[in-house]
Amino acid sequence: MSDHLQRLYERFRYRGRKFDFEAVGLRLPNGAEGELETIRHPGGAMAVPVLADGRLVLVRQYRFPLDRWLLELPAGTLEPGESAEATIRRELAEETGHRADGWAELGQFPLAPGYSDELIHAFLAWDLQPLPDPPAQDADEDIETVLMTPAEVEEAFARGEVDAKTMAGLALARGRGRL
Amino acid sequence: MSDHLQRLYERFRYRGRKFDFEAVGLRLPNGAEGELETIRHPGGAMAVPVLADGRLVLVRQYRFPLDRWLLELPAGTLEPGESAEATIRRELAEETGHRADGWAELGQFPLAPGYSDELIHAFLAWDLQPLPDPPAQDADEDIETVLMTPAEVEEAFARGEVDAKTMAGLALARGRGRL
Repeated sequence: MSDHLQRLYERFRYRGRKFDFEAVGLRLPNGAEGELETIRHPGGAMAVPVLADGRLVLVRQYRFPLDRWLLELPAGTLEPGESAEATIRRELAEETGHRADGWAELGQFPLAPGYSDELIHAFLAWDLQPLPDPPAQDADEDIETVLMTPAEVEEAFARGEVDAKTMAGLALARGRGRL
Repeated sequence: MSDHLQRLYERFRYRGRKFDFEAVGLRLPNGAEGELETIRHPGGAMAVPVLADGRLVLVRQYRFPLDRWLLELPAGTLEPGESAEATIRRELAEETGHRADGWAELGQFPLAPGYSDELIHAFLAWDLQPLPDPPAQDADEDIETVLMTPAEVEEAFARGEVDAKTMAGLALARGRGRL
């Protein structure tokens, strides 16, 4: 018996634009065998952008799996060969039209470990400046910037309008005494 | 142009044990068209089980997508026709060997809205009692119960050992003044 996973066979793999989906036969560390499905993801990067007055820069974003708009901290998927820090600088510019002069790593966490290997790398961002010539958004994104206090984010979360990673990012920033 | 999503065609569907995965052609509310992939999930239910001394009941659980153990609040996937409240009572028993006599709904939130439609229904649970004859765990689960203070959970989260939904659940319980 091994302490780690053994891959027995691959039944299926779907190569998506940003991540893969696979169904594989596995032997788990406890000896159980089964066919399990998971998203194989290159990782995500998220910013907790804090303005001088303590408000946060969030995005109001259309999410097609739910067919509705959510409030979220700016985030995106790592591109091949891209560092998490490069990803989040790019996404902050594309999604909010801002750059930050202050950056600090907050840590990384699993988003949906029941069916995805995605880890989200979280960064605190401050000294925010509007870009004179912001980059274009992706064609399939529909995003506007929203400024909210942490208390307002928590109220919106209790109404189901905010996603889990955003609350995880607030917890990390608060743990560092930065909210 | 519609305010909502239009489904143009289905390229692919995988029927998994607990959820489906699909690749579909979509027209988004902003008019953009594309082929997008998502997990179609029946929903999850999570407990924030609070002991009389303020500690939380978590589970240390092997997660095959990451091939490592994580600390998480007890949770599980809704079965066909099952209510979220029935799911979480069942999962609390299976995963921790406890039942709760006090239950309150905390709300629901999207877990990974970039590629999943899963909503997690969160419940506060108190008046916890060990079951005299706890039910068996699923064969592919490998779970032990861990008691931690909220501060200890936050420290473990900063080390990457806790998932996003757990931090979201703590935020909901704290917002109700229950942590």
